[in-house]
Amino acid sequence: MNNTTDTPINVIGLGRMGQALAGAFLKAGHPTTVWNRTASKADQLVAAGAQLAPTVGDALTAGSLTIICVTDYPAMYELLGAGDVALDGTTLVNLTSGDSAQARDAARWAEERGARYLDGAIMAIPQVIGTDQAVILHSGPQQDFEAHRSTLDALGTVTHLGADHGLASLYDVAGLAMMWSVLNAWLQGTALLRTAGVDAATYAPFAQQIAAGVAEWLPGYAEQIDSGSFPAEVSALETDAAAMAHLIEESEAAGVNTELPKLIKAMADRSIAAGHGGEQYPVLIEEFGRSRES
Amino acid sequence: MNNTTDTPINVIGLGRMGQALAGAFLKAGHPTTVWNRTASKADQLVAAGAQLAPTVGDALTAGSLTIICVTDYPAMYELLGAGDVALDGTTLVNLTSGDSAQARDAARWAEERGARYLDGAIMAIPQVIGTDQAVILHSGPQQDFEAHRSTLDALGTVTHLGADHGLASLYDVAGLAMMWSVLNAWLQGTALLRTAGVDAATYAPFAQQIAAGVAEWLPGYAEQIDSGSFPAEVSALETDAAAMAHLIEESEAAGVNTELPKLIKAMADRSIAAGHGGEQYPVLIEEFGRSRES
Repeated sequence: MNNTTDTPINVIGLGRMGQALAGAFLKAGHPTTVWNRTASKADQLVAAGAQLAPTVGDALTAGSLTIICVTDYPAMYELLGAGDVALDGTTLVNLTSGDSAQARDAARWAEERGARYLDGAIMAIPQVIGTDQAVILHSGPQQDFEAHRSTLDALGTVTHLGADHGLASLYDVAGLAMMWSVLNAWLQGTALLRTAGVDAATYAPFAQQIAAGVAEWLPGYAEQIDSGSFPAEVSALETDAAAMAHLIEESEAAGVNTELPKLIKAMADRSIAAGHGGEQYPVLIEEFGRSRES
Repeated sequence: MNNTTDTPINVIGLGRMGQALAGAFLKAGHPTTVWNRTASKADQLVAAGAQLAPTVGDALTAGSLTIICVTDYPAMYELLGAGDVALDGTTLVNLTSGDSAQARDAARWAEERGARYLDGAIMAIPQVIGTDQAVILHSGPQQDFEAHRSTLDALGTVTHLGADHGLASLYDVAGLAMMWSVLNAWLQGTALLRTAGVDAATYAPFAQQIAAGVAEWLPGYAEQIDSGSFPAEVSALETDAAAMAHLIEESEAAGVNTELPKLIKAMADRSIAAGHGGEQYPVLIEEFGRSRES
């Protein structure tokens, strides 16, 4: 079921990302129906074999699987909530950017109208859609994902995270936090080393090696969090804090930004003040899990 | 010259790390002379074949290569600056923890006394000294490093960073900043996902994959920094900033800490305010390279 390249697919929204998605389905051989408010954005896709639907309602009836990728959730409600649009019996895969609450609300809304609903997050730029590099996260009922997995595979590396429709959005921002943090730590180090005449290209492989090496610790450290026990097998938080002070001092002496070093130390200091100085780094989950306002 | 396991080596300072260093040299077959203020800390090493020197001065004359690993730089000056200690003709490898200014000062001090001097930083715990996992950074004259490299190899993965004696310390804190940043981003994501019932072990492989993937971009991004040109080949900073707002919103909605998300966005916002919104992420080097006080 739905697992050959003959499966028809509808794509609503033809911004740069929507065009890339529809293009990947076409390339994989799927009969592809597209719709966009400004119809001319479909020109290239139509030339490549796509059908242009005159209305959103028409697009939805062309096949039972519809990808929607528009500006935001309000735009999605406006298009799919119009009087002439029937969602009954459709499986909707919403790849519009939004947050987890919007995804959960949209799932309820779509299900009330008889649709099956998966929410997705695209961790990729349009240029790589259709390649393994394009990571696309999905959340919602597993059976709906499995039913369409082989079709969705045309888009890149597709993953199902769980039944909670909010998960794709949460994993997305969590992954982005990792991305920006690796980049910021690298920039901090690069700024520091440049003051000693080391260029960015010389320092980068070192930073790359550390980031990849530390990443390998995460599954083991996760066990400490899940068990709620943080024995200092590698080093104690108070030893880390002493080295954090060195990072701040070096940054100050070099005249570079100290905000990131100071935040790193502030989080550790708070955990030490709460009595965790003799435990291992992942004990900081208690600080990260707590709102500062609370 | 000095490149067989017959090369005698002196180790001053037998804390946990110093004991591990001396133990690794002994294991590699080097005649090893040790000294520590509290002589009993040498007992195990002596049992394994080390010679215990009665004074620091005696330890220094046992071989022409001396490793010192003590509490801090003042402790080093106290030991090596004593009247009966001759540094002339010695090569000193100082693996004591300190900052780049202390390393540069110590180099001058030792060289004035006729010693050759390398400063080092140990990015490892004592348990892994003597294995490939033990990364030990060295800085100072390359010829001095090369002359003793095969001896130092007994300690782990040894690297020479450059002639500036401060580099080992700078790379060390830069690498630690990367370590803590990967861990903190992972903790942020773990805290967020736990509010949706996802356990740490389930999330960890995803975080690991992102960290390792982003690390691979660093050499390419470094070229932008070194050329001072930041075209938005992948994405523009203002697009990133919109997603950063999502991260903050999701963290707030979940009731987890928002300090790291807010710092990430504040750095980007400042760069956008300075006119760089259409450029790519590495343009943030200008913010990281600037003291906020200036």
